[in-house]
Amino acid sequence: MAADTELALEPIGIVRSPLVGRKDAPRSPADGPAAILDIDERFVAALEGVRPGMELIVVTWLHQAHRDVLQVHRRRDQTLPLTGVFTTRSPDRPNPIGIHRVTITMVDATRRLHVAALEAVDGTPILDLKAAVDPGEAANRTSSPSGLRRRASTS
Amino acid sequence: MAADTELALEPIGIVRSPLVGRKDAPRSPADGPAAILDIDERFVAALEGVRPGMELIVVTWLHQAHRDVLQVHRRRDQTLPLTGVFTTRSPDRPNPIGIHRVTITMVDATRRLHVAALEAVDGTPILDLKAAVDPGEAANRTSSPSGLRRRASTS
Repeated sequence: MAADTELALEPIGIVRSPLVGRKDAPRSPADGPAAILDIDERFVAALEGVRPGMELIVVTWLHQAHRDVLQVHRRRDQTLPLTGVFTTRSPDRPNPIGIHRVTITMVDATRRLHVAALEAVDGTPILDLKAAVDPGEAANRTSSPSGLRRRASTS
Repeated sequence: MAADTELALEPIGIVRSPLVGRKDAPRSPADGPAAILDIDERFVAALEGVRPGMELIVVTWLHQAHRDVLQVHRRRDQTLPLTGVFTTRSPDRPNPIGIHRVTITMVDATRRLHVAALEAVDGTPILDLKAAVDPGEAANRTSSPSGLRRRASTS
């Protein structure tokens, strides 16, 4: 396995949001507020091609999460049995990486990305941005039987 | 921003695959071979509830990627213009985190997870597993207008 030194993350930016704590976060990602992805100027070249209307996957570091949690009650419902965090979207998990699908609403003059409905608290480090779907793949394979229907989701 | 010491990843396991190098990887994730998610025994409690047929998101560390790449030719096609890596699914990016949707085909006696069609080379560190869709959310919100159709995808 790779040495730990090779698995160090360098944030590429930070989330600016009216959400200030975990308890403020809505349970459904679609209910998250508008937010800003403030990308470090060192990585502006990697934003080439980002346009309003584009859907991207935002990968975050859920810095308020508890890394020692291995089981949770689904939907924070104590009446439900404990289940392994790897079958849930709980932010609490050994490596608290969040995955959020967002729509870009504006790229402002300072190259900050404005997005709709992001369930991530203010100050959350951003690790990566990706195409929600590879444009080439989508064009080539829209008729694939492996196409799947799924929802926008976080963490 | 959080100190670097808080952004250190600890792999939870490793991918076992017949793919031995990047050049072997298919361009479309649906064409990836069957593989095994070999999860460290320290995290077995977090697998509680994983069943054959379940769809999960696998988060990996793309250890063969180049972290200094900010722009690429889409689909490795040199005739296409350079575009920012944050609008693509290229493995090359500042934090080479891979996202893969898989279907569990078997959980064997040693709790290793067998999966179908994973585009990740042998030895790839695994960082996290997540529900592909939150079961509670899916049950509550299947009629939401924010439901989106998208494909299984990698990196």
